[in-house]
Amino acid sequence: MTINQITQVAIVGGTHGNELLGVYLVKKFKQFPELIKHASFETLTLLANPKAFEAGRRYLETDLNRCFNIQDLKNPKLIQYEQLLAKVIYQQLQESRVDFLIDLHSSTANMGFTILLGNDHPFNLHLAAYLCSINKSVKVLQIEPTQENNRLRSICKLGITIEVGPVAQGVLDATLFEKTEELISAILNYLEQWNQNQIANYPSSFTLYYPLESIDFPRNKAGEIVGMIHPNLQGNDYLALNPGDQMFINFDGSVVVYQGKTTVYPVFINESAYWEKGIAMYLTSKQQFNIPN
Amino acid sequence: MTINQITQVAIVGGTHGNELLGVYLVKKFKQFPELIKHASFETLTLLANPKAFEAGRRYLETDLNRCFNIQDLKNPKLIQYEQLLAKVIYQQLQESRVDFLIDLHSSTANMGFTILLGNDHPFNLHLAAYLCSINKSVKVLQIEPTQENNRLRSICKLGITIEVGPVAQGVLDATLFEKTEELISAILNYLEQWNQNQIANYPSSFTLYYPLESIDFPRNKAGEIVGMIHPNLQGNDYLALNPGDQMFINFDGSVVVYQGKTTVYPVFINESAYWEKGIAMYLTSKQQFNIPN
Repeated sequence: MTINQITQVAIVGGTHGNELLGVYLVKKFKQFPELIKHASFETLTLLANPKAFEAGRRYLETDLNRCFNIQDLKNPKLIQYEQLLAKVIYQQLQESRVDFLIDLHSSTANMGFTILLGNDHPFNLHLAAYLCSINKSVKVLQIEPTQENNRLRSICKLGITIEVGPVAQGVLDATLFEKTEELISAILNYLEQWNQNQIANYPSSFTLYYPLESIDFPRNKAGEIVGMIHPNLQGNDYLALNPGDQMFINFDGSVVVYQGKTTVYPVFINESAYWEKGIAMYLTSKQQFNIPN
Repeated sequence: MTINQITQVAIVGGTHGNELLGVYLVKKFKQFPELIKHASFETLTLLANPKAFEAGRRYLETDLNRCFNIQDLKNPKLIQYEQLLAKVIYQQLQESRVDFLIDLHSSTANMGFTILLGNDHPFNLHLAAYLCSINKSVKVLQIEPTQENNRLRSICKLGITIEVGPVAQGVLDATLFEKTEELISAILNYLEQWNQNQIANYPSSFTLYYPLESIDFPRNKAGEIVGMIHPNLQGNDYLALNPGDQMFINFDGSVVVYQGKTTVYPVFINESAYWEKGIAMYLTSKQQFNIPN
């Protein structure tokens, strides 16, 4: 790898204003900066969308975490609130010379502690492998390449998004909060060890979930939702969904089963924020991924 | 009791636009009206705040379920969106001569299937006793008398509010959905039997939870939240909280314990919508309530 030293880390929370886990972790780190202090790099914290947080909403005008496409950032015609905010955040993080970024999210789906990989940079892959080796509850999920480039995390080549759940929007779950804080500490320790050239050995292989397609809720001709996640699927994120397994139960009592030909692994099942995007879940493939030498 | 016949029932959902349980139960009943059809009374359904539902929010300008104070309904100066909506809903339900009203809500707290009693009318008490006798998961909670008169349910002397949880805002949980539908069926069957003078015997005693006080989150001098519901209390709605038990864990690691002198029973623990109201939970007393003859 051509990465020599990490010198400036950013921990971002509240990219979505009603995901309180990231908001209050950032507030905690601002209050107790020694928690994220390391010898070999600086760490800045950023509450990305404080106005959305104050309003108790994901965003005010448009989803901030879809505003970071580099063409959009340069487009003077894009002037919705979050489009402006994205431009300012981008400028700020560029000027701070951030070279590693953690973006904190929470989900109403049973995502556990998910590392979202935005690209296949070897540094990020090695970090994911390391985190899997020390914490068996960590899952690694690739973001669809077509989507990655509009995310806040894409500002920076190195870094990850963390998705934690299940937790309702507008709520703090102390258990998830503490475990996420531990995960962030582990990441910062890894960066420190990297800088010191003291990384311990770990397997260069991990389980990677790769998105295949998104699945919408059942709808009628008018586009209205007419069914729910089936109780047998609810909360089963990252578990096998086999051909013929129940996916949805409709209000008329009928059941929609998975029609695919191969086993898949759904994630973001019943994520509240994805209703408006027409996504009831993503189907993923599960593979053992070996980091190339 | 002086009640002879119930002739017009209203089932209301979406009083809070992001509580999808009620929204989609009402949509289901509109689509399949035979599910709520009875011989001795009419049942109308009402999606109370469709614009808030479309926006994915509890309300647009102010909490609709705090707008039904009769003085407020008559006050021409109150013209926020939900204040106007309340006036129109009140007019509509009055004109329909609704004499029994069910208002459907969901909660991020572990409220199970809670019957919220707005007043101590014997008819409502008997219904609560009946529901407890046929469904052991039903809990009965009194609304604080000072608060009751601004609720939508207060339009009508007879009726109850149903609070179901835990479920995130903006999400449907199929299991809770189906059990709530069963509970509504049981209520309508009770009304039918009442009208036919064919109510079976049931104990005239039930467990009643009565609100004592609301408890706010720990805050600093600037008013910012500095702690979370303690993991040992999270999800423990309706369970005993004893003097010295853990209530909150602060971001500095310190723990806030319950300082009261008697055992209480917290409810609405970590209800997302109550953050803005400065309520982390309500403490209640638990009593065996005998309906007066």
